[in-house]
Formats: sequence, C-alpha cells, structure tokens
Amino acid sequence: MNAIRTQPLTASGFAPFGDILEVGEKPDMIINQGLCGRHHDLASLAFDEGQAAISIFDAEPRTLPYQLDMMERHPRGSQAFIPLFPNPFLVIVASDNNGKPEAPQAFLTAAGQGINLHRNTWHGVLTPLAAPGVFAVIDRVGPGNNLEEFWFDTPFSIVST
Amino acid sequence: MNAIRTQPLTASGFAPFGDILEVGEKPDMIINQGLCGRHHDLASLAFDEGQAAISIFDAEPRTLPYQLDMMERHPRGSQAFIPLFPNPFLVIVASDNNGKPEAPQAFLTAAGQGINLHRNTWHGVLTPLAAPGVFAVIDRVGPGNNLEEFWFDTPFSIVST
Repeated sequence: MNAIRTQPLTASGFAPFGDILEVGEKPDMIINQGLCGRHHDLASLAFDEGQAAISIFDAEPRTLPYQLDMMERHPRGSQAFIPLFPNPFLVIVASDNNGKPEAPQAFLTAAGQGINLHRNTWHGVLTPLAAPGVFAVIDRVGPGNNLEEFWFDTPFSIVST
Repeated sequence: MNAIRTQPLTASGFAPFGDILEVGEKPDMIINQGLCGRHHDLASLAFDEGQAAISIFDAEPRTLPYQLDMMERHPRGSQAFIPLFPNPFLVIVASDNNGKPEAPQAFLTAAGQGINLHRNTWHGVLTPLAAPGVFAVIDRVGPGNNLEEFWFDTPFSIVST
C-alpha cells in the first residue's frame, strides 16, 4: 500500500483543485461601519443545469493512517465544505489522467479554513479527524447524474507528516 | 431605549425570517458508505439577476447589552452565515411594516448552527459575541443595488435573557 503524507493546506498547493475559504491577508472591503472585513467571492462555483443548495453533512471522524480506497468527482458542479467546528480535516484530491485519479495528495486544514472543490475534481469523501464532523456543504441540486466513483486496485494509506 | 431580550434560535421562531443550518433529527440521506448523514437542501436561496458567491466575513466581537441603531435588507438575494468557530452569535431580525423594520427580535445561536436569511428580510449586521468572528457568507453578486438600510430614531438595546 503506497503511503501519502499529509501536507498543510496552502493556496498555492491547492490551486489546481479548488479554493481555500479563509481570512486572507487584507479584506477586499470593509463593511458594517468599519467593524467587518469582507474577503469577497473566493470560490469558483458551478451549478450546471441545476442550482446552488446548502446542506449539512454530519460525518464520522476518521483516524490516521487512513485507507483511501475510492475517489469521486462531480461533473456538473463545484462542492464547498465549511466546517462548523475548528478541527482539522483531511482534504484528499487528485489530478485526472484519462478518466482516472492520478497521484492523490492529502491536505490537512487548519482552524478557520473551508474549501471549495472545483467542478469535476477527483476527491476523497469527507474525512473529519475529530468530532463533531459537521460541515455546511454548498453544492448543486438538479437533474442528471452528478457522481462518478473510482475504486483503486491497491488502496493508498494516508499517514501523518 | 427599548430593551429586547435574546431568545434561543429555534426553527419555529426563526421560520418567518430564514432557515437554520444545523444537524436535524434525522438525515435525509446516508452517504459515503454509511459514514455521513446528509441533511439536504436546507436553505431557501435567491440570487436574482446575479449569482451565488462564497465570501469570508471577519467581524469584531460585540458585547451585550448591544445597541441596535440600524437594520438592513437585501432585496435581490438571500444571505447565509456559517460560523467557522462554534461561538454563539446574535441574529437580529424584524418583520416589515410599509418599508420599515417592525418589532425586532434577537436570537442567540448555539454551537453548530448557521443561518440563511431569506431575500429582503430585515436584519442587523453580523454580530459575533466572541473572537474569532469568522463566517462563510453565501450571498448574491451581480449588478444593481442590493442594500437598503433603516436607521431607528430611538435605538434598541439587546440584553441577555
């Protein structure tokens, strides 16, 4: 089983796969009589032939080493995950090679970070590392199939850095 | 100055103004090989003549009693607030009476609760009660004015229950 070491979630490393939703260096606007910074429009959203929805996911925490058997992608829409509790969670993503995920990477979030996966990006299922694993999810609702899965012949093992 | 006592945020009390984004009694679907409950499509979203965006708001914490001078509303879109830290925040809303906010109410969230304000609902500005006051905000971007403000002649005072 090939091992994949976790790495911190940074904008440069994550850029090919999605957006990080976090407080940036400088807000784009100051609102509410100077009391609130707005870091504006951080996510590339897509809801093809459908519309945006907000759902709540309640996922069981996992532990490292974590066995990665399967990755999935959503051809018709982006999918954002915003944790309601500031515990780190695993973000596993991969590039595509002829319809298959290739060279998965595992990012570990910090408190105050959410993510948005771009449309059709290979990713692992939601993997919190502590309870409660409660997330707001902004993704597409609409007609047609929006889920593709790929099961690895040989699983990967995600291990801590 | 008229006092308004905070009340816990419950779906029945908040229903005229918006949606609560939280883990419900029973998930609508079980996904990810049984390890995740999906509480599906909880928010009435509107992005008239524009589109959905995800921004991050970083707001200064306030303290009670809190002086409510102004309320605002967004005629072209809904606005959801998802806290990235599980500290309670104030949600101040009011019904409309001929273009003016009437009888404001102040709800206090619990850990794990986000909210979605329906389009054109009078509300106070984002008021966290503890640091960090960091929220993901799902609202409309697009052309045209989407902000209306109303300043009270006599402010209200929001006080604890």
